[in-house]
Amino acid sequence: MKDAPQDHRLIDGKAVMARILDDVSAYFAGADIGQKGARLVSVSIGDSPEVAVYVRNQALAAQKAGLRFYQELWSDEVSQEECKQLIVEMNDDPSIVGIILQRPVPDHINVRSLQSAIHPLKDVEGMNPASIGNIVYSDMALAPCTAAAAVELIRETGLELKGLEVVMVGHSEIVGKPAALLLMAEGATVTVCHHMTRALAMHSRRADVLVVAVGKPHLIGADMVKPGAVVIDIGINQITDASGKTQIVGDVDTAAVKEVAGWVTPVPGGVGPVTVAILMRNAMIAHQRQKEVGWIC
Amino acid sequence: MKDAPQDHRLIDGKAVMARILDDVSAYFAGADIGQKGARLVSVSIGDSPEVAVYVRNQALAAQKAGLRFYQELWSDEVSQEECKQLIVEMNDDPSIVGIILQRPVPDHINVRSLQSAIHPLKDVEGMNPASIGNIVYSDMALAPCTAAAAVELIRETGLELKGLEVVMVGHSEIVGKPAALLLMAEGATVTVCHHMTRALAMHSRRADVLVVAVGKPHLIGADMVKPGAVVIDIGINQITDASGKTQIVGDVDTAAVKEVAGWVTPVPGGVGPVTVAILMRNAMIAHQRQKEVGWIC
Repeated sequence: MKDAPQDHRLIDGKAVMARILDDVSAYFAGADIGQKGARLVSVSIGDSPEVAVYVRNQALAAQKAGLRFYQELWSDEVSQEECKQLIVEMNDDPSIVGIILQRPVPDHINVRSLQSAIHPLKDVEGMNPASIGNIVYSDMALAPCTAAAAVELIRETGLELKGLEVVMVGHSEIVGKPAALLLMAEGATVTVCHHMTRALAMHSRRADVLVVAVGKPHLIGADMVKPGAVVIDIGINQITDASGKTQIVGDVDTAAVKEVAGWVTPVPGGVGPVTVAILMRNAMIAHQRQKEVGWIC
Repeated sequence: MKDAPQDHRLIDGKAVMARILDDVSAYFAGADIGQKGARLVSVSIGDSPEVAVYVRNQALAAQKAGLRFYQELWSDEVSQEECKQLIVEMNDDPSIVGIILQRPVPDHINVRSLQSAIHPLKDVEGMNPASIGNIVYSDMALAPCTAAAAVELIRETGLELKGLEVVMVGHSEIVGKPAALLLMAEGATVTVCHHMTRALAMHSRRADVLVVAVGKPHLIGADMVKPGAVVIDIGINQITDASGKTQIVGDVDTAAVKEVAGWVTPVPGGVGPVTVAILMRNAMIAHQRQKEVGWIC
């Protein structure tokens, strides 16, 4: 993002990431981390180049956060039962502070069932249905990382979320719905739009805060944004331009929208880095809670 | 509700209840209910007249559904640990198809912790955070009863929920948020309003379906409703009129709103009876699932 630091309308996700990782690093440097140490374990099932990119970013962030990071790569021939057994053993291992289950997984693996097997206290991705249920009850300790990153970036504007009109475009289980619940807990009036919504622009145009997570390149143009609004772009899409060059763009036409919006998050360099930082903050919170309940001594 | 059967704009909750209970009754009459029988257990902690009214209605509905209903009244001096132990024993009892934990409970009892102790397969009220998390994942088998009753009553109008603009007024954990999630899963575009919403009428006036659950008598007047809309009134409020007579009214000014709306649910006689019927339907679903996983034989 060559223009990210210069343009005050672009929210700098990398700066937010650095601040969060500093906090987490200070915690793990100062905390009594327990006799067995504290490590975050990433589980990949089967080899996949796209998963490898995620894992690498997480490993780098863990390093900055002062947290040991172990990468496990399980064979794509491992069975569902074996996976579950290995996860249960990790739940019982006091040296493991959190478990990350990388997606996608091979077709024969039921990922939701495995996510449910991760103990809520070690569910740093916030993917266990019980973790998500706790969000409904406004207990936001371990929220899904991308959804929490969206909230963090809105806070970065300094606006008070209470009473704001927020329109969430996209109602996925992993991002849209949990983000909507987190934003409701902050006092926003939230509308969730999706592919069945008949008048998307009507909603997006009235939004004080527009959060977009649908995976459609440049779905949101300047004419769909209210002047002065906050626009949080969660989309990550690879496109090929006329000259055959590929690039990563969001769901928002950033260049056009930033002439209208008050704030917009760039892609890349917006929600992405903050999401990884939130994962580390979740590991910190998980560690604190495991200490509280006596799992770590 | 003297005018309920006469006025076609009022959705008759008792008729919906009767239809659901007929289905459940047919199931339990025909099903192999298992060697130990199947019963629903209601747990009240401490004596309370308001709880007694709920329990009585549930017992009557269970009778119509052909389901044995056991009422347990635990002392208000029972400890949290004792409650949890008793619930765990019920989880393991193959003759118990579902557990209802009546609210309110005494102050020293942590009701959410007890709700979490009820196994999701026996959580007929849909109150366990894991059950609610499953709704986020669009797995709606055991949904919170009141929220599911609202959806059932909207279906009763014959309207297709997909693409409709639904405005939910109230964002409680028990009703508003789960109802919003259920409605999203049906394809509606959902806005959740609450006491921090700045322009409630702006939202309520544009709603194809307006669902209200806030506990404020007659909050919604005719001027807040779009002509032809569906209005689902979840409020139950006791008020005292000028002559000193008490009566039960909803959050909607029913008499005024039914001159504008296409459909409105009366209070009493709307959402209330359907909620109890859904509890019995949840017991049926719980029984089916317990059979599937081999808990009942």
